[in-house]
Amino acid sequence: MAPGPQRTPPPTIELPQGFRATGLHCGLKSDGAFDLGLLLAEQPVAAAAIFTQNALQGAHIPVCRQHLAQSGGLVQAILVNSRNANCATGQRGIDDARRCCHELAQRLGCKEEHVLMASTGPIGAPLPADKILQQLEPLVSQATSQGGMDFANAIMTTDTHPKAATATNPSTAARVTGFTKGSGMIHPDMATMLGFLLTDAAAEGDLQTQLQDLADRSFHRATVDGDTSPNDSLFVLASATHSAPITQCRSELLTVATDLARQLAADGEGASRLITIEVRGANSEADACHVGRVIATSPLVKTAIAGRDPNWGRILSAAGRADVTFDTDKARVWVGETEVFTHGVPKPEREATASQHLVASADIVIGVDLGVGTAQADIWTCDLTADYIRINADYRT
Amino acid sequence: MAPGPQRTPPPTIELPQGFRATGLHCGLKSDGAFDLGLLLAEQPVAAAAIFTQNALQGAHIPVCRQHLAQSGGLVQAILVNSRNANCATGQRGIDDARRCCHELAQRLGCKEEHVLMASTGPIGAPLPADKILQQLEPLVSQATSQGGMDFANAIMTTDTHPKAATATNPSTAARVTGFTKGSGMIHPDMATMLGFLLTDAAAEGDLQTQLQDLADRSFHRATVDGDTSPNDSLFVLASATHSAPITQCRSELLTVATDLARQLAADGEGASRLITIEVRGANSEADACHVGRVIATSPLVKTAIAGRDPNWGRILSAAGRADVTFDTDKARVWVGETEVFTHGVPKPEREATASQHLVASADIVIGVDLGVGTAQADIWTCDLTADYIRINADYRT
Repeated sequence: MAPGPQRTPPPTIELPQGFRATGLHCGLKSDGAFDLGLLLAEQPVAAAAIFTQNALQGAHIPVCRQHLAQSGGLVQAILVNSRNANCATGQRGIDDARRCCHELAQRLGCKEEHVLMASTGPIGAPLPADKILQQLEPLVSQATSQGGMDFANAIMTTDTHPKAATATNPSTAARVTGFTKGSGMIHPDMATMLGFLLTDAAAEGDLQTQLQDLADRSFHRATVDGDTSPNDSLFVLASATHSAPITQCRSELLTVATDLARQLAADGEGASRLITIEVRGANSEADACHVGRVIATSPLVKTAIAGRDPNWGRILSAAGRADVTFDTDKARVWVGETEVFTHGVPKPEREATASQHLVASADIVIGVDLGVGTAQADIWTCDLTADYIRINADYRT
Repeated sequence: MAPGPQRTPPPTIELPQGFRATGLHCGLKSDGAFDLGLLLAEQPVAAAAIFTQNALQGAHIPVCRQHLAQSGGLVQAILVNSRNANCATGQRGIDDARRCCHELAQRLGCKEEHVLMASTGPIGAPLPADKILQQLEPLVSQATSQGGMDFANAIMTTDTHPKAATATNPSTAARVTGFTKGSGMIHPDMATMLGFLLTDAAAEGDLQTQLQDLADRSFHRATVDGDTSPNDSLFVLASATHSAPITQCRSELLTVATDLARQLAADGEGASRLITIEVRGANSEADACHVGRVIATSPLVKTAIAGRDPNWGRILSAAGRADVTFDTDKARVWVGETEVFTHGVPKPEREATASQHLVASADIVIGVDLGVGTAQADIWTCDLTADYIRINADYRT
């Protein structure tokens, strides 16, 4: 596999107060790696979640929705398995997910509706629920404030490294810690995006709306569109161990969510480059995001970056088909610090410099100014390499 | 390069009466291959054209629009060059295209507005118009009724073979002959789709509307969306050498256009399989087309086919994110003749048979029934192989 942009995950990661975590191997992955994780609060805490918009939904999603509705948005534990999506498994799949929640609630002495579940992996195979149930006891007993990276490891599928991030509010000392997993990037249909945000701040206001807004500015800008995988799920839990309200931690939440989203993009399947797409000069932020996503999902742009080719024509062409207002004569395209298309005029003499940026850096910037307004957005994606094909052509074999 | 689905183009192809064609090497391609083509009518004939919806447009497009408006839809000649898109070349590009039309009109003794031009290839470099102008005389003198395949060769870029098709109306003997070139398939931003339909039938009714309708049922179903490349252009010319009206040739026009569209899909860059996506049980034909296109542009579906994996989960998941009405419990998915997902239930025991279809045939069928209505559509695409990456990462190097 081509080396992706290197990120060394912290060997341990601090959890916010009031949370424990762990991971272990319950027998779903054939190589003995961790495949079952647990996030645990001391008691039911304020929570919210957003789920995929896909018409096909993993079995954990209706169960989570039901539990959140019954509990009024209180969660004590989230159980997560990898290597099996429990998706397209019909009523049996829902029964399996519910049974896992039920058994875990019994062990924790909480109500079933205070337990959520999330699954990720290949779809269509029945969930081996017995393997999961047999490991609930060690899972609960192992969970500690030091177990964050074990949890991050347990939720991985084709991710090449566990993904975690943390930030502390300097004035209140309230902490936000998050975990995520990817990693099929172009259209993450099957590569479930799971995200978990924990904070010891206290919920205040409409947590659901706050989470949606946060996702729109972070995960949804990593071409990990919440609406494209059957299992995509993002959770936030606030333990209120600190008296500081969560609204004072907006900056830390965005920092952690953005960091995780960029980790997702950087670890896209087969990726050798993290690409930040800077869209400027748009009529609206929505336009800027849309143009960025069209560029980010253009195989021709992504293969050009894989070939270290500062192909401004493909970038401009992708922007041009996004169906937003755009002035070719005022448009600009840059690669790294080098403007390779200026107000309608190509600058071929600068392309060698631009290529250098693509060759030398694992953290690429490309940008386009639409020349019509002042709105802007950044979108993150990765390049498209032959390794992506290899990984996905052989995924089930 | 992986062998694509093999199609042997006819060594010659018959043109409709009243047309001549040719191709030659004028010096744009470095390997000496044909790079300049000409379609020629005996006098100005009824014509229509549709062009890309991309905000970025090749210089030939405004020139063609202007000439068609001035002439009231009469065309005597279309000059086509490959290896240079004459796109993002500013006013100079438009002047170059206009000069080529002007010089050709002088040689033909017709008005400038009766000449159109189309360009395809990498964008951003100025058109070497002098090389083209120097070859106008031999081009005109060489054009014959036997020159169709020379024209088809001259318009190729990364196509692996020239693409032509012909059909004759059995009752009137009116003929339709078409040419096209591709071939970057996933999002054909840069791989300009050029299409040319010639008939000796007589124009009748609104030719523009007829062409749009024809494209919607043929080229626009090959994931060669007319709106995604700066240079995409489709032309129809009717010489009226036959008295039969073009409306009697609807079937032949659709046959030729569909054949060309399937050739485009089959010759997608790096393709080893032509994929026909059958969408059934939709609420509307528009829904069926949309679902088909979402499946057809899913890298995960396309890499699965490259891996000969009958991965119904990816097909269903792609359909699920198309945002159209869809009943998971009534849905069906098939690969070849084998139903691998039936009314919400996976049939893993059938996957070996389905795999056989993917291994044995170069002409793959996959299908999905949405379980909600009776509308349907077929969409054509190709698989996504490592060769696609190689071709596109190295396109300009």
